[in-house]
Amino acid sequence: MAGIFSRIISGEIPAHKIAENEYCFAFLDVKPLVKGHTLVVPKQEIDYLFDIPEDLYNELFSFAKVVAKAIHQSIPCIKVGMSVIGLEVPHAHIHLVPMNSMQDLNFSNPRLVLSPEEYKEIATAISSKLA
Amino acid sequence: MAGIFSRIISGEIPAHKIAENEYCFAFLDVKPLVKGHTLVVPKQEIDYLFDIPEDLYNELFSFAKVVAKAIHQSIPCIKVGMSVIGLEVPHAHIHLVPMNSMQDLNFSNPRLVLSPEEYKEIATAISSKLA
Repeated sequence: MAGIFSRIISGEIPAHKIAENEYCFAFLDVKPLVKGHTLVVPKQEIDYLFDIPEDLYNELFSFAKVVAKAIHQSIPCIKVGMSVIGLEVPHAHIHLVPMNSMQDLNFSNPRLVLSPEEYKEIATAISSKLA
Repeated sequence: MAGIFSRIISGEIPAHKIAENEYCFAFLDVKPLVKGHTLVVPKQEIDYLFDIPEDLYNELFSFAKVVAKAIHQSIPCIKVGMSVIGLEVPHAHIHLVPMNSMQDLNFSNPRLVLSPEEYKEIATAISSKLA
């Protein structure tokens, strides 16, 4: 059975899409650490980041860079931080998190609960920078 | 004046080197979250990860992947996690952290203090997998 991120990519599970290309997909984390927290995944369901074949691995990080620049242009932050943990969902994913302090990338922090309007507004703001 | 990582790369400040190539350098974090916590940096001193030119950016992540595989082969862990925060030292650096739980990548955790022999042993174990 397809995993949760594959079901998001296929549209079976709704999500706030930021961008996609042939190989990669970016969408808002539904339980964000801060507003603008985005997940970037390869469309191919590979569990472990460092098992991703070189071409796709490079594509994934290049795609993440483009998305990070759009986040930086639309969400007030000093920098966009990046983390790959990989112990929960077995489909490699890069967290991109707009940061104003070290604490913003602390995955032990409580997650935000946003309204549907807020998610939509954030996704629109970020994706508008990718046009 | 050269920053701390450039001074490590030049050998002016001692560190436990894991690997280097023409463009990148990897060494043990002197205040590790867990044993095997490694920093991977471009030799060129660029502050923000997403400002690194595309060729060097890809080279950096490819190099980090090779180092991560060596960490995985030498330090008991489920996966090697990755984080780039960038609010402290203004020279982009990738944290590679051997992980057995989500908490292992929590930068609020107290850092380990190891003996010189322990650092040496860990660096030798990891770099031996890169031969």
